[in-house]
Amino acid sequence: MNIKEKAMKMKSVSPFMAASPTETRNKALKAVAEALLANKAEIIEENEKDLAAAKEREIPQPIIKRLKFNDAKIQDVISGINELIGLPDPLNKVQLKRELDEGLVLIRETCPIGVIGVIFEARPDAMVQVSTLCIKSGNCAVLKGGSEAKLTNRKLFSVIYDAVIGAGMPEGCMMLAETHDDIDNLLECYGAIDLLIPRGSNEFVQHIMNNTKIPVMGHADGICHIYVDKYADIEKAVPVIVDAKTQYAAACNAAETLLVHREAADALMPKLAEAFANNGVTLKGTQDIRAIVECEAADEKDFATEYLDNIISAKIVESAEEAIEHINKYGSHHTDSIITEDDDTADRFMQLVDSAGVYRNCSTRFADGFRYGFGAEVGISTSKLHARGPVGLEGLVTYKYKIFGNGHIVADYADGGKKFNFKDLEI
Amino acid sequence: MNIKEKAMKMKSVSPFMAASPTETRNKALKAVAEALLANKAEIIEENEKDLAAAKEREIPQPIIKRLKFNDAKIQDVISGINELIGLPDPLNKVQLKRELDEGLVLIRETCPIGVIGVIFEARPDAMVQVSTLCIKSGNCAVLKGGSEAKLTNRKLFSVIYDAVIGAGMPEGCMMLAETHDDIDNLLECYGAIDLLIPRGSNEFVQHIMNNTKIPVMGHADGICHIYVDKYADIEKAVPVIVDAKTQYAAACNAAETLLVHREAADALMPKLAEAFANNGVTLKGTQDIRAIVECEAADEKDFATEYLDNIISAKIVESAEEAIEHINKYGSHHTDSIITEDDDTADRFMQLVDSAGVYRNCSTRFADGFRYGFGAEVGISTSKLHARGPVGLEGLVTYKYKIFGNGHIVADYADGGKKFNFKDLEI
Repeated sequence: MNIKEKAMKMKSVSPFMAASPTETRNKALKAVAEALLANKAEIIEENEKDLAAAKEREIPQPIIKRLKFNDAKIQDVISGINELIGLPDPLNKVQLKRELDEGLVLIRETCPIGVIGVIFEARPDAMVQVSTLCIKSGNCAVLKGGSEAKLTNRKLFSVIYDAVIGAGMPEGCMMLAETHDDIDNLLECYGAIDLLIPRGSNEFVQHIMNNTKIPVMGHADGICHIYVDKYADIEKAVPVIVDAKTQYAAACNAAETLLVHREAADALMPKLAEAFANNGVTLKGTQDIRAIVECEAADEKDFATEYLDNIISAKIVESAEEAIEHINKYGSHHTDSIITEDDDTADRFMQLVDSAGVYRNCSTRFADGFRYGFGAEVGISTSKLHARGPVGLEGLVTYKYKIFGNGHIVADYADGGKKFNFKDLEI
Repeated sequence: MNIKEKAMKMKSVSPFMAASPTETRNKALKAVAEALLANKAEIIEENEKDLAAAKEREIPQPIIKRLKFNDAKIQDVISGINELIGLPDPLNKVQLKRELDEGLVLIRETCPIGVIGVIFEARPDAMVQVSTLCIKSGNCAVLKGGSEAKLTNRKLFSVIYDAVIGAGMPEGCMMLAETHDDIDNLLECYGAIDLLIPRGSNEFVQHIMNNTKIPVMGHADGICHIYVDKYADIEKAVPVIVDAKTQYAAACNAAETLLVHREAADALMPKLAEAFANNGVTLKGTQDIRAIVECEAADEKDFATEYLDNIISAKIVESAEEAIEHINKYGSHHTDSIITEDDDTADRFMQLVDSAGVYRNCSTRFADGFRYGFGAEVGISTSKLHARGPVGLEGLVTYKYKIFGNGHIVADYADGGKKFNFKDLEI
């Protein structure tokens, strides 16, 4: 079977995956945790082969660091699974129960999305997190991890899959994709795959979005802003900006552009320039900024750039309104923060900035499923449809409407013979 | 300005539309209702011109019937607006409030999607319903109605727009699109338009879905099924099937295929054939069906056809499982109904059929926003992302996350210096 045929097969399995009882799904998760522990040595062995190959190919150090899957990381993912087991079941939750008329009852109930394809970076812990989120939410999953982690992922998948099937989940409920050709073939699986979640570079996510009819959840880029208002507490502003830029510069929720109210600039910029210098951050400023502190020049293009590095652009604005307009124009609707002590300005900013996350007096780096208390996340969405922001279990379910009748027909209501008598019932 | 520039402009208006207070939006709706009443004579006059042109072009009678916008229909849409005013505000609803740590609070709050493009059939009442749903939900709207209603829509739009602006909504919050070129240009407005809702023929909706990067909500086809189980009450089954087929054959929620359990066929089919004959329905059956009643032959292709007419295909199945498999394979995941007196079989069917609506012992024609008690609907979605099934106000909103901090940075948590202390707060 090629991958398309396998995906079609998976589609026919998905209703049975969806129907699996809570206990079976939790039992499968427990089996996965146990199997990871039991197969630890072999998993680490495969990971060491991946690491050796990566070093030989002179893969950058940060990628190698993420690729490494040692005892401590395995322990972490096992703790994550145990937490996931403890979370409430996202399925079969009644969201609406309404009597439409005597003997005619409408129910809206959560159910899995069906078949989800997740393409993620070369991080073995992502393989475990993504697959277990799909198990918990009753979704079939096509899993494609970064190629640097190929051997680790192959081993992990086989350990996870065997554990899941052994626990009574339907055969074919998960599959591994390994090559770039597999990804291209997945893009053509409209009708079989219900949702694609690509994680990776802007170009990669754009490529996925532009080449498939399957709905895509995720974000192409993360151009996040910090606006330092006229009423900002400068002592608060500096560490927040440094954190938002440097705590993990390659992350999508790192700040790329700083907007500074003219009346705050003189007090802020010298202190900030010093902090940037101490933290290895390159500042690129407009002329106004460069009149206050020495730095490289920023132009229009900088404001549309996700540096993914210790570089930040800065611009003076005359008002909160100008900052809001700039963010809505150049931003990626991901996460933007205002530093201000003024409630009205904060409220206006948080109302008018059209982003998944709008923060006051804190770092944009808080945009993350773990930090929101969702348990793991499958990604962060900048789309406004379905899940927005960090996506946890809740973003992996949809709902269906059920109606229970007793021979009810619409003609009776259209003719006026019967009337609807909407009455919400206790859930 | 061309339509793309107008859409970009609308995008910059949308945060202000989103920020409009509940009272202003309800005031605008009240103004629309009053303006429709005040301009009734002129609206009807324009409608009569559209009707005359349609008759001249020999447009089919059912379309002319829907195109007609008389005193009674205007009264109906005004009642609809008054109901909409009475519905709770879908915006600024807090869905989650969580203390992440001391002084760091996460809130999830509903907000409008932003800019929505709705393309609908030549029904003047649709123009009123769609525009008022967008006003109530704080969304900017690009409105394109069927060309047969061109003069009526132009008049209606101008009456509605003036009323809305007069009530204090932001200028440019709504616009009218009139030509097919306009639609093609709208498809290119990715980044300015957040959501497209096309209503119309399968080909038209497919065309929209295949030619834009903008998310699309709706359904291309409605291949709905009725499965008559071995445990069906035949007396209940016949009127439900007749209703599902004939109450409005051109609707997306009309039944197209009948699946009959072998053990129910002998009792059902003769009665049903008689009922079909009395109601002008053409039955197309497989060989098994034709062994019981005389009818045209159905083949594989019939099961993938939305007739939009008084034609129904029928097939014998050996089990509920076979019916479920057929529906998941050939259906459009819209609405499917089982006729049975057996609870277990009903539960299994409603669990395993992967459709937006799964019904027991009632007509598929109940799949409708009004009949679900949602007030008006903007359409019915067969997608599993975002809204599924009939889409009312709730499907026109998304949410944003707000975090209120006091200089909080992520480094403190990453270093282990601070710990998250998730605590859900009362909403």
